[in-house]
Amino acid sequence: MQAEIIAIGDEILIGQTVDTNSAFIATRLNSIGIKVAQKRVIADEAGAIERALDDVLSDTVLVFTTGGLGPTKDDITKKTLNGYFGGELVFNEKVYQNIVKLFRSFNRTPSEINRSQAFLPSSCKPVLNKIGTASGMHFKQGKRHYFSLPGVPYETEYLVENKIIPWISENLQKGNVVHRTLLTQGVPESELAEKIADWENSLPLGISLAYLPSPGLVRLRLSSYEEDSKEALKKINRKAKELREILGDIIFGENAQTLEEVIGISLKQKKATLSTAESCTGGYIAHLITSVPGSSEYFMGSIVSYSNRAKKELLEVNMENIVAHGAVSQEVIEQMAEGARQKFHTDFAIATSGIAGPTGGTDEKPVGTVWIAVAGPQRIIARQFRFGKNRERNIRKSALMALDMLRREIQKFQS
Amino acid sequence: MQAEIIAIGDEILIGQTVDTNSAFIATRLNSIGIKVAQKRVIADEAGAIERALDDVLSDTVLVFTTGGLGPTKDDITKKTLNGYFGGELVFNEKVYQNIVKLFRSFNRTPSEINRSQAFLPSSCKPVLNKIGTASGMHFKQGKRHYFSLPGVPYETEYLVENKIIPWISENLQKGNVVHRTLLTQGVPESELAEKIADWENSLPLGISLAYLPSPGLVRLRLSSYEEDSKEALKKINRKAKELREILGDIIFGENAQTLEEVIGISLKQKKATLSTAESCTGGYIAHLITSVPGSSEYFMGSIVSYSNRAKKELLEVNMENIVAHGAVSQEVIEQMAEGARQKFHTDFAIATSGIAGPTGGTDEKPVGTVWIAVAGPQRIIARQFRFGKNRERNIRKSALMALDMLRREIQKFQS
Repeated sequence: MQAEIIAIGDEILIGQTVDTNSAFIATRLNSIGIKVAQKRVIADEAGAIERALDDVLSDTVLVFTTGGLGPTKDDITKKTLNGYFGGELVFNEKVYQNIVKLFRSFNRTPSEINRSQAFLPSSCKPVLNKIGTASGMHFKQGKRHYFSLPGVPYETEYLVENKIIPWISENLQKGNVVHRTLLTQGVPESELAEKIADWENSLPLGISLAYLPSPGLVRLRLSSYEEDSKEALKKINRKAKELREILGDIIFGENAQTLEEVIGISLKQKKATLSTAESCTGGYIAHLITSVPGSSEYFMGSIVSYSNRAKKELLEVNMENIVAHGAVSQEVIEQMAEGARQKFHTDFAIATSGIAGPTGGTDEKPVGTVWIAVAGPQRIIARQFRFGKNRERNIRKSALMALDMLRREIQKFQS
Repeated sequence: MQAEIIAIGDEILIGQTVDTNSAFIATRLNSIGIKVAQKRVIADEAGAIERALDDVLSDTVLVFTTGGLGPTKDDITKKTLNGYFGGELVFNEKVYQNIVKLFRSFNRTPSEINRSQAFLPSSCKPVLNKIGTASGMHFKQGKRHYFSLPGVPYETEYLVENKIIPWISENLQKGNVVHRTLLTQGVPESELAEKIADWENSLPLGISLAYLPSPGLVRLRLSSYEEDSKEALKKINRKAKELREILGDIIFGENAQTLEEVIGISLKQKKATLSTAESCTGGYIAHLITSVPGSSEYFMGSIVSYSNRAKKELLEVNMENIVAHGAVSQEVIEQMAEGARQKFHTDFAIATSGIAGPTGGTDEKPVGTVWIAVAGPQRIIARQFRFGKNRERNIRKSALMALDMLRREIQKFQS
């Protein structure tokens, strides 16, 4: 079964907003075996919406539109779909009561503008949106189903997850698609390709491999669209096992896992605790770690020591070391890691200090120079890196590298 | 002049990667008056690429493809374009020397796989990519120009910014488009719409308004595609001025500015310094602040006190207060803010403490309850919020609200 996504919104076309809805919808469809054949982004114009609907590929059974359902004048999707499928806008009491209830939870009452959102095309079934004022809509024409969803990612995710995926699973037949993605850290794409060249050549027909590089990590995705999904899964699992043997601990996890989730699981298993002392990463590592629900069980906190004075007073780094070797040095980074470990009374601590850029570099320590240390119960390890000139990438790469060094140290730890 | 973007990659179609390249390209094209009429995302399949190229709208002069230029087997864009435009793959010494140079900077030498990236279609001009091994390509057919760019955002951004935009500005004529976006914080979309309803009705023909809501803030974009861009800019500026008068300090900035950038500018102007004490935001506020280049001038650091012990030992919060009122309380949040201000010797400090979720709520303090304080030289303010049940959104909304409270306090400050 084949799907298409049409994202409606000038803000996406002009690049002001990044379209995350399409990625979410595609991921969820994929997980139940539905392949997305095409995505389009078009303007908030009736003509563009109508043309995109006319141009849907002939094999497509599911069409999703996102955006243009808000209460304001620039939102024209509802009116356009009403015209396209024929009918009139009708007041829906159930949808209105939901709006009233939402406003009550914020101690407010709906205005006339908000009430207008309860008028829906007579040709659709509403897809009730309990967490927002824009109702989802379900149209049917021949064998094809059209779902119109709001542009707000939070609401679209809610509707897809709780309403549409369950409806599809119950009412429509599914195709077969199997993916498995292995996550690697610290080895560049072309080096990985060389390491696994023989294995890649041995992949059977019907199984494909994709390299998905992003700053600091490369994902390796195995896919099969074969008819017999049980057989395909077996083949993919066998190949994934071989890949794990070749790459060893370069692989840190699978599928949608993040490095910080993998670390959280290991820390809980080993009943160990963690803290960080961050200079160039500025709190980003703590943010990644605390993005994981339940992280308060093992994460005690961080000292972001952006100034030398904070390094000295809060982490007890020797001023002599800072003066003699600079804040970006092995001497200082080791004291920062040990300082955090002691101040937060944790088993492990991560420390980072570097020149994130765009300015602040010297000949000896150019922009992108970063020291990272991991202190544990048995030892401290410290490594120097040269990333690049881009501040955002330096912060991200430093954080991922630090988490990866920690992951390897935790593996060695016996509680 | 009209452009289209074709993003090539199964990883985008299946939702594993969010397409940020299109947004970047569109923003830069827009800034020189070129409108993006459509974007498409298609599979890594020769047939899909050929069909997308055939389907380009007749008015389109610029076509951008991204992705599929890597050194590995799943990258087929180069081969497909070579077939589509006719010709053969030819070794390009200049492109190869660039690859050799790149590898040297990492103390490595290119492999056979890397060398293969120096073979380019004879029908294209290379667009030299100094920061990556995949060369950009420029094809021409009739009046239409095609640019093929790598999927790695960092490299595509480099090529668009440094090579393609300058080339277009020099060689092709431009159309007219004027945008101006005002950024608001803390007022929901429908309330904003009511506040500015009369003003919105007074907008002259040819100027349109769009509401762009995202968690915690709403952007208001004024656009004109009129022929006379000087006249359009005048009209837009007049309307923006009126809007600023109506909304006052609800507006915190314009266009691509972030709250943390605006705060950075104010702090520098007033020669004031900042620190944070973060519990529920877990370092995210420090991360936002330190994302801004030059932030070390005014940001001294943060204590992320995820445990009560850290709140007591590092921020000197009274344990009695934690026991009597809980860590999420006015008493504790005020002590946290003042604690950070003193430990980091700063003029201002932000503190957050809340229940980010998904668990940890009580009847009295449900998930989403957050206390935020801002301590300054003259006073401490503290406010309680109820956000929602989603951890990620709670962290984001708390951070934006805290930055907005700080922004208003800095405005009042005379150094």
